[in-house]
Amino acid sequence: MTGTPAPFTADDYTARMRRAERAAADAGLDGVLIAPGPDLVWLTGYRPPETERLTLLVLRPGEDPALVVPALEAPDAAEAAPPLTLRDWTDGNDPYETAASLLAPGGHTGRTRRFGVSDNTWAMHLLGLQRRLPDTAYTSLTEALPTLRAVKDAAELDRLAAAGAAADRAYEEIRKVPFAGRRETEVAADLAGLLRRFGHSQVDFTIVASGPNGANPHHEAGDRIIGRGDMVVLDFGGLKHGYGSDTSRTVHVGEPDAEERRVHDIVRAAQEEGFRAVRPGAACQDVDRAARAVITEAGYGEYFIHRTGHGIGVTTHEPPYMVEGEERPLVPGMCFSVEPGIYLPGRFGVRIEDIVTVTEDGGRRLNSTPREMAVVD
Amino acid sequence: MTGTPAPFTADDYTARMRRAERAAADAGLDGVLIAPGPDLVWLTGYRPPETERLTLLVLRPGEDPALVVPALEAPDAAEAAPPLTLRDWTDGNDPYETAASLLAPGGHTGRTRRFGVSDNTWAMHLLGLQRRLPDTAYTSLTEALPTLRAVKDAAELDRLAAAGAAADRAYEEIRKVPFAGRRETEVAADLAGLLRRFGHSQVDFTIVASGPNGANPHHEAGDRIIGRGDMVVLDFGGLKHGYGSDTSRTVHVGEPDAEERRVHDIVRAAQEEGFRAVRPGAACQDVDRAARAVITEAGYGEYFIHRTGHGIGVTTHEPPYMVEGEERPLVPGMCFSVEPGIYLPGRFGVRIEDIVTVTEDGGRRLNSTPREMAVVD
Repeated sequence: MTGTPAPFTADDYTARMRRAERAAADAGLDGVLIAPGPDLVWLTGYRPPETERLTLLVLRPGEDPALVVPALEAPDAAEAAPPLTLRDWTDGNDPYETAASLLAPGGHTGRTRRFGVSDNTWAMHLLGLQRRLPDTAYTSLTEALPTLRAVKDAAELDRLAAAGAAADRAYEEIRKVPFAGRRETEVAADLAGLLRRFGHSQVDFTIVASGPNGANPHHEAGDRIIGRGDMVVLDFGGLKHGYGSDTSRTVHVGEPDAEERRVHDIVRAAQEEGFRAVRPGAACQDVDRAARAVITEAGYGEYFIHRTGHGIGVTTHEPPYMVEGEERPLVPGMCFSVEPGIYLPGRFGVRIEDIVTVTEDGGRRLNSTPREMAVVD
Repeated sequence: MTGTPAPFTADDYTARMRRAERAAADAGLDGVLIAPGPDLVWLTGYRPPETERLTLLVLRPGEDPALVVPALEAPDAAEAAPPLTLRDWTDGNDPYETAASLLAPGGHTGRTRRFGVSDNTWAMHLLGLQRRLPDTAYTSLTEALPTLRAVKDAAELDRLAAAGAAADRAYEEIRKVPFAGRRETEVAADLAGLLRRFGHSQVDFTIVASGPNGANPHHEAGDRIIGRGDMVVLDFGGLKHGYGSDTSRTVHVGEPDAEERRVHDIVRAAQEEGFRAVRPGAACQDVDRAARAVITEAGYGEYFIHRTGHGIGVTTHEPPYMVEGEERPLVPGMCFSVEPGIYLPGRFGVRIEDIVTVTEDGGRRLNSTPREMAVVD
């Protein structure tokens, strides 16, 4: 895809809402409840503030979509969301009463109604619904409809590929900047600028973790001055045209020593094996196991301290998770990271990450820069 | 307060956690559960990412504070939070199992344990706890401990006053910039720059709502070019030294006409009456009623379409709410906005807002710029 993709239309969003309603019916649910956040963006394109005032999309099989919305946000909702029934409520009134009229229109029937609810719905709102409607039961959307947003269509895959290509261009350029003698935060600022230059509207993270900082997988970027001889983990991403990028490469300032080479080779082999495990019908945990086996067999198992991957879409971090215990199968169209790492406390870390999509006969990488260790200045 | 205040210490945070434990005991709770967000910042100073990985502060009367934390974030937590017991869990394991060992250490006892839970805890996590621990019941923290963060101590009041004074300086300066012929977004950018110049580290909102846009209380700032004769609602705020500002003034480009003056006078009188209703022991809703009565008696009741105010502290928007139905009493040290408005669809809007704190004998404004309508160019 080149250029700017056409924005999603009201018809696109309506089709997604219908897909969610069908999935809810197939899962034996009476409906799904969507609070502000990525699920609502994906289903409607609407991005209200996430506040204590209840906004809730209610999707029920066989019924029109309805949006519970604070009265003073109703005009914005009408403008931003695809056609749906607005049910507004006014400050001082009980928003759960408004929601109840949609969730249990006939009142108590003796039957427990079951709903999926978006993961990030505020507990305060869930408790409000549970109290107002004792005959209801709830499951998080990740549990109830794990593949709803996880399986991407062609238009979404195009956007994810474009975001990945832009991140790849940022990596090609960042290798040319000076590392030695500069702070991690300076290189991180360069990375953020490159992501924006190549079309990102939002930068979510620009990890630059040098030397011992690389051993902390959640280190972002700090005041440490990068030195000659440092390993440097680069992990960066954000949103382009509303879809995410996320890639990691580990570079070396000057020539690496034998151990640094060995650890990097192990992680690269683990990333390759994780990628090779991607195919329809494999379990999510199989990807984790394949990557982890390489690292464990090389004797570094205890230093791979996180799961192997996470999904990506309208966020840079979402289900499905490539983690032990996640037995759900991979489905064509899923997109997620494969990002094993080794973290040696007090010394250095290595992580290599590509976004991968499941195809009919295996996996396809959405990042294509060399995974071999690059030497930078 | 002048200059930079001393940062809160581990002792300050420990005292806050103890206060929460005592409040929980007084409310008949077995403890309070705090997810990442403003409650956690207030109690510990720790700001982890808000993700699907469970991080949960567990405070129980008579027990040491404990933090359930993803293993890969444990080093950051140990560094950023005051001394507390870390209970880490690793990807692939059940974090609710780890939480359960803290919430119900003896397993099932037949007694229902009751916990307050921070409002913005993800529903997914609450459902995980409810499923793992059927003998537990939960209430949102706003319901369970409504005054926990709402009553500010002297150090917090100093910070809120400093943030208010900085916002006031921004308002004094913004009156000098040209309005007519510029886009709302340009004036909004000026406002953001002024807030930063006067010490804000974070700008949360800079509403510039001109002409008919002012009739939508949630309008932020758009491409509309401000014209001579426009009313312009300015509503702006953010964080300075970790505490919030939020103030509104409505200005006029050139001389207002008689109706514009009248509507502005009514809102100013309503704001004054709302402020006068502030005193210890009054109900939150009394502040709303006092302001609303002025507007209703003037015949504009149907155009005042939101509550009168909201609390402010480590966020710019939190409990307590000055709204009909909120019968809880005002307590010295509470801080909140008093911000009535009139919104005339298709025409213009007026809103006037000060932050007010409850004192022993009434209320004190933390904003002090003139509330009379200013004429700008």
